[in-house]
Amino acid sequence: MWQLYQFPLCPFSRKVRLLLGEKGVGYELVRESPWVQRDEFLDMNPAGQTPVMADSAAGTVLIDSSTICEYFEETIDKASMLPGTAANRAEIRRLVTWFDERMYAEVVAPLMHERMLKRIVHRMTPDAKALREAMKAANSHLDYVDYLLDHRRWIGGPVLSLADLTAAAHLSVADYLGGIDWRGHDRTKEWYAALKSRPSFRPLLSERMEIVSPPDHYDKVDF
Amino acid sequence: MWQLYQFPLCPFSRKVRLLLGEKGVGYELVRESPWVQRDEFLDMNPAGQTPVMADSAAGTVLIDSSTICEYFEETIDKASMLPGTAANRAEIRRLVTWFDERMYAEVVAPLMHERMLKRIVHRMTPDAKALREAMKAANSHLDYVDYLLDHRRWIGGPVLSLADLTAAAHLSVADYLGGIDWRGHDRTKEWYAALKSRPSFRPLLSERMEIVSPPDHYDKVDF
Repeated sequence: MWQLYQFPLCPFSRKVRLLLGEKGVGYELVRESPWVQRDEFLDMNPAGQTPVMADSAAGTVLIDSSTICEYFEETIDKASMLPGTAANRAEIRRLVTWFDERMYAEVVAPLMHERMLKRIVHRMTPDAKALREAMKAANSHLDYVDYLLDHRRWIGGPVLSLADLTAAAHLSVADYLGGIDWRGHDRTKEWYAALKSRPSFRPLLSERMEIVSPPDHYDKVDF
Repeated sequence: MWQLYQFPLCPFSRKVRLLLGEKGVGYELVRESPWVQRDEFLDMNPAGQTPVMADSAAGTVLIDSSTICEYFEETIDKASMLPGTAANRAEIRRLVTWFDERMYAEVVAPLMHERMLKRIVHRMTPDAKALREAMKAANSHLDYVDYLLDHRRWIGGPVLSLADLTAAAHLSVADYLGGIDWRGHDRTKEWYAALKSRPSFRPLLSERMEIVSPPDHYDKVDF
């Protein structure tokens, strides 16, 4: 049985969970708070980050969300999330990197720092300026997703792909932390509603991080 | 004909060039300085980063070094740089991410900032403390490569892989910028000498960045 080391608001673990859900791969959740820097976790992953997937019976340890996704793309045929030609796959991977690097650095990481880590770890109040900047950046990212969805059925092309799962994973964490204003982004909102209603997404939406609560609309498909 | 948009000290472009060299894929170099934020380049890649590969005849644009490497792994059978089982490939990809994220952020990016961008763009002198910290981090990274090479023939496993090309790409930029002290790292030095003597590496070692010169040992296989 695979074990997935993660915490409820880790966007990279959410990406992996959406992929595993679509593919029907079973796993057990293991709660890991990477900011604690637990010795046993660092022994498993010197980078100290979630997600990590381990199959102790097989002696397999998979580290880094993109590596984990590529592994299950290679080993599980069902529901390919990197569909199409090599060029189609390159466009999907480009967008995965875009959301994992840009949307994470500009939107999700500052929201997690201000509204989650400062509350849980540092017992500090969030910085209003940092929050404003993250929410402004979120708006620009939604504009870009609007633009992509004006030209394509799904974010990465004509069919659902890892680009959609990655964008939705990051957006869902930002939304949980109250960083998303959906007004004026109808196309992206409609796309996100469709993703929210998928069976792979439902378990994520019902989970809660300790101390930090999401806004009322967070888990509603009709929001 | 593929065109590769890059500049001589871009470690991510070096990784791609090493892969293309090993696979025997031809390309033309196009000099791009991402810090200039040229409009035409931003139109091609909204992320504004090198490398980008374009085949204008085919209308194909590939963005992001890992995406480019996966594309050529999928389309060119010669010299697989992600060899072995899915688990072997996962270990190689883990290490690629490790060097691209950690070694880049802790060693290569600060060295590029202090010794290249400050000189070329900002006309400032480097900060001694930042340089000392980058060189100290470089030493820790070399310790980790020593450790890997004590357990394996190559960094990612029993054969040459993208993990070696990625580590060598980042190390070569750090070495060009005088950030590497090879003393006490005999195993890694020996591995790096073997890579330096490969035909894929020779063109990189003979190139120079304007204004910034490498130390004398930089392009020597026996250093």
